[in-house]
Amino acid sequence: MVRRPVPRVTVQRLPVYLRCLESLPAGQQRVSSDELAELAGVLGAKIRKDLSYLGTHGTRGVGYDVEHLKHEIRIELGLTRDWAVVIVGIGNLGRALANYGGFGERRFRVVGIFDSDPLKVGRRVDGLTVEPMELLARAVTERNASIGIVATPAHAAQEVADALAAAGVRSILNFAPVVIKPPEGVEVRRVDLSTELQVLTFYLARS
Amino acid sequence: MVRRPVPRVTVQRLPVYLRCLESLPAGQQRVSSDELAELAGVLGAKIRKDLSYLGTHGTRGVGYDVEHLKHEIRIELGLTRDWAVVIVGIGNLGRALANYGGFGERRFRVVGIFDSDPLKVGRRVDGLTVEPMELLARAVTERNASIGIVATPAHAAQEVADALAAAGVRSILNFAPVVIKPPEGVEVRRVDLSTELQVLTFYLARS
Repeated sequence: MVRRPVPRVTVQRLPVYLRCLESLPAGQQRVSSDELAELAGVLGAKIRKDLSYLGTHGTRGVGYDVEHLKHEIRIELGLTRDWAVVIVGIGNLGRALANYGGFGERRFRVVGIFDSDPLKVGRRVDGLTVEPMELLARAVTERNASIGIVATPAHAAQEVADALAAAGVRSILNFAPVVIKPPEGVEVRRVDLSTELQVLTFYLARS
Repeated sequence: MVRRPVPRVTVQRLPVYLRCLESLPAGQQRVSSDELAELAGVLGAKIRKDLSYLGTHGTRGVGYDVEHLKHEIRIELGLTRDWAVVIVGIGNLGRALANYGGFGERRFRVVGIFDSDPLKVGRRVDGLTVEPMELLARAVTERNASIGIVATPAHAAQEVADALAAAGVRSILNFAPVVIKPPEGVEVRRVDLSTELQVLTFYLARS
């Protein structure tokens, strides 16, 4: 069977569907696209189309098998294996991310935390010790890290992203409030913590 | 002129466009939809359609006026006024959010930080003092807060959301790794810090 490539917008919705499926009551075996749509806040037709890219189709009047669908989405998102992650910038946000329960749940394993500040190096955060930047490259190789998280102030973010790329990281998640130029061959995604607030004010401004 | 309602997916992209416009070099006066598309990682046709909901149309071969477009998007998102925000749950994440530079930039003003832990009450975080939950309702009213941020552990999130709603908050941003049932008349958005990581692994798993 030839699979159609999954559009980026669909990829972005898959984690949301997965989270919604996981929030269903423990014993629920079936879910309709409309029920899932309601939980995810999108249209049922969109869900049916998104899931069709996975080769998954619900049964009319019966819906989707919950466990099967979760499994299919996890496979699609590469969540059936562990991913080693390093975090650079251990301020409040870096510490929060190092502790974040949601990562472990998703098989993201934080294997190293780094900071350029000598006063932070050596401190313990949730079972890990802050390491100096000089050890980053070796750590990425030895611990097989493929994802780097940038949690530095804005002014340091590009330099850190470049260092992560040079160390061999292939994907970067940027929490610094600045746009990073992606190093060659590296996928960069940005999390702007104020984006969702701005969506809220759109509706507040109208009510 | 009758304005068409702006679709939710468009609303969610507007903050991204705004951030991209703000990242342009200081002197740049014009931007084409294709240039903006490249920065935002979406199709040019989608940008043109999204911006048409704002009644904003670029000029063929000339593009959009950068300052005008930023202004239009800020108006649309309700970012031409200040919004008072309270944060509940002052662990690492709550502290990171209280300090987060990206909020001030967007005219989100943190007017109160709250925690149920008596050991945290009274501590100073970035110019604010942690207050006990008993003072939440009065603070929301007196300081005119319309947005509440939930940064508690998962098990406390629903109770805190209900307390925020009872205090008069109309929008809630939930950072706890759990789905909250929206209190009546309150808009809830969830930020799952692992969502973007899952988008990255989709691509990593394929490369």
